Amino acid sequence: MSTVKSKGGADLVPAPIGSEAMAAALRARYGNDVPAIGEGSNDVLASLVTHRSVRAYRPDPLPLSTVEKLVAAAQSAASSSNLQTWSVVVVEDQARKARLAELAGGQKHIVEAPLFLVWLADLSRAKRLASGAGRPDDGLHFLETFIVALVDAALAAQNAVAAAESLGLGTVYIGAMRNKPQAVARELGLPPHAAAVFGLCVGYADPSRPAEVKPRLRQDVVIHRERYSTADEDVGIAAYDETLQVFQQAERLPAIGWTQAVLKRLGSVQALNGRDRLVEELRALGFALK
Amino acid sequence: MSTVKSKGGADLVPAPIGSEAMAAALRARYGNDVPAIGEGSNDVLASLVTHRSVRAYRPDPLPLSTVEKLVAAAQSAASSSNLQTWSVVVVEDQARKARLAELAGGQKHIVEAPLFLVWLADLSRAKRLASGAGRPDDGLHFLETFIVALVDAALAAQNAVAAAESLGLGTVYIGAMRNKPQAVARELGLPPHAAAVFGLCVGYADPSRPAEVKPRLRQDVVIHRERYSTADEDVGIAAYDETLQVFQQAERLPAIGWTQAVLKRLGSVQALNGRDRLVEELRALGFALK
Repeated sequence: MSTVKSKGGADLVPAPIGSEAMAAALRARYGNDVPAIGEGSNDVLASLVTHRSVRAYRPDPLPLSTVEKLVAAAQSAASSSNLQTWSVVVVEDQARKARLAELAGGQKHIVEAPLFLVWLADLSRAKRLASGAGRPDDGLHFLETFIVALVDAALAAQNAVAAAESLGLGTVYIGAMRNKPQAVARELGLPPHAAAVFGLCVGYADPSRPAEVKPRLRQDVVIHRERYSTADEDVGIAAYDETLQVFQQAERLPAIGWTQAVLKRLGSVQALNGRDRLVEELRALGFALK
Repeated sequence: MSTVKSKGGADLVPAPIGSEAMAAALRARYGNDVPAIGEGSNDVLASLVTHRSVRAYRPDPLPLSTVEKLVAAAQSAASSSNLQTWSVVVVEDQARKARLAELAGGQKHIVEAPLFLVWLADLSRAKRLASGAGRPDDGLHFLETFIVALVDAALAAQNAVAAAESLGLGTVYIGAMRNKPQAVARELGLPPHAAAVFGLCVGYADPSRPAEVKPRLRQDVVIHRERYSTADEDVGIAAYDETLQVFQQAERLPAIGWTQAVLKRLGSVQALNGRDRLVEELRALGFALK
């Protein structure tokens, strides 16, 4: 990889993505409905739009300081009122990864990836500050404050994802850390008022089992101008069903499109994999969710 | 700004940040506790770590296709089970921005910024699919599914932030969109099962009122290795209190440090600015949060 002079003056390694790769990613993302994103792209934008979730990893160890780089990016994300209500547990121990994979319904990529980051909604730090100072913590016990922590964690994690991908690493989020929050909390030794909200596998993608750019809804379905509108939504979704079927066929997945996948995933309590008990689980971990 | 050849072959405009700017940002971010992030940086990482929240904007309009670029980045973020349970309302109308600013407790930067993006946890699309197909939507009514939508929205928005900053634009999140969710929903014409989770101001930073890099906790306070640990947390927080006081003095803010700010913000229900009613408000918008 060549280096380039940037405005700051010193040598930097560029993100290894060109505008052709970006154009290809946009075609893969939007099928026949590529948005006109115009001129003025750059390596950051190119890196973001070429994202793919990686579920097959090489066992190779990561370079030194990878965690420090990812966390520097994560901590640089915005934090609501600068409360910094998240933490991250860095899991590299094979046995622990295997146990967490089991708690996540047997997702092998958690074991395969050399690094598994568990992102926490962490109000325990604030709780300790209040307890230590003998001060009230009345604001801590509301759904709102849990949401602050959840959003803080998500913004941080997404910066870590962008950083990882710029370093040539692949990632995939693991929402199944919410299947059994109390068991995960025990495994990670979490104090009350902290809960895993999702995991993140990090590692080098296995080129023999490549991940593809996942198509998404065309932009006019998710963008609303000034006020919410469902005009042409059905047309947009029908087009997307076709685009996704083509993708599913190429990936040798059942070619059911998007609508049927959504209906299946949200149609029953069973499909929530135990997460219908999340309120109860979070309360047991100390979140009153008032 | 010069262009560079990237791996894809074509010309791209680099993100305008060098490694010196990055080193300076890390010093500003961590004070005396700069982590050893090692070699192998790049423009993406540099852009991420130099983030600052911008609350003062020039009125200049944004380039054409800015929204399409930001949304392409946003849609490229991971989405839980590809459900794509978020939408974004693009607000550019001055009168509407003024009304939303009022609902957010009078935050002037919402009016100043030429673009205000309101990010929605949007389960209404799935609801319409189920209703249209005469199919059950039993999974829709759980806290878990709201969390899926919230995390989806946060990951998308953070990619939009990274994209905006790479294009030379500034941003700031507006959590106060959750102060009065029903009023915001009326203003934006939201259907049931959709709610604004936060806003995002986007525009050119006013150089006469510059935003600085906000210091954060040192890394060992938020990173836990294998299991959660509070060892040295008090030392780390004491050091951060000092770092933040220096920052607050320089910004002509009350130099109260971090601990006191957290205790003040989370100590009372009043400090939640009405968000103690969030459960009730979300239920009124159709989210059962079971």
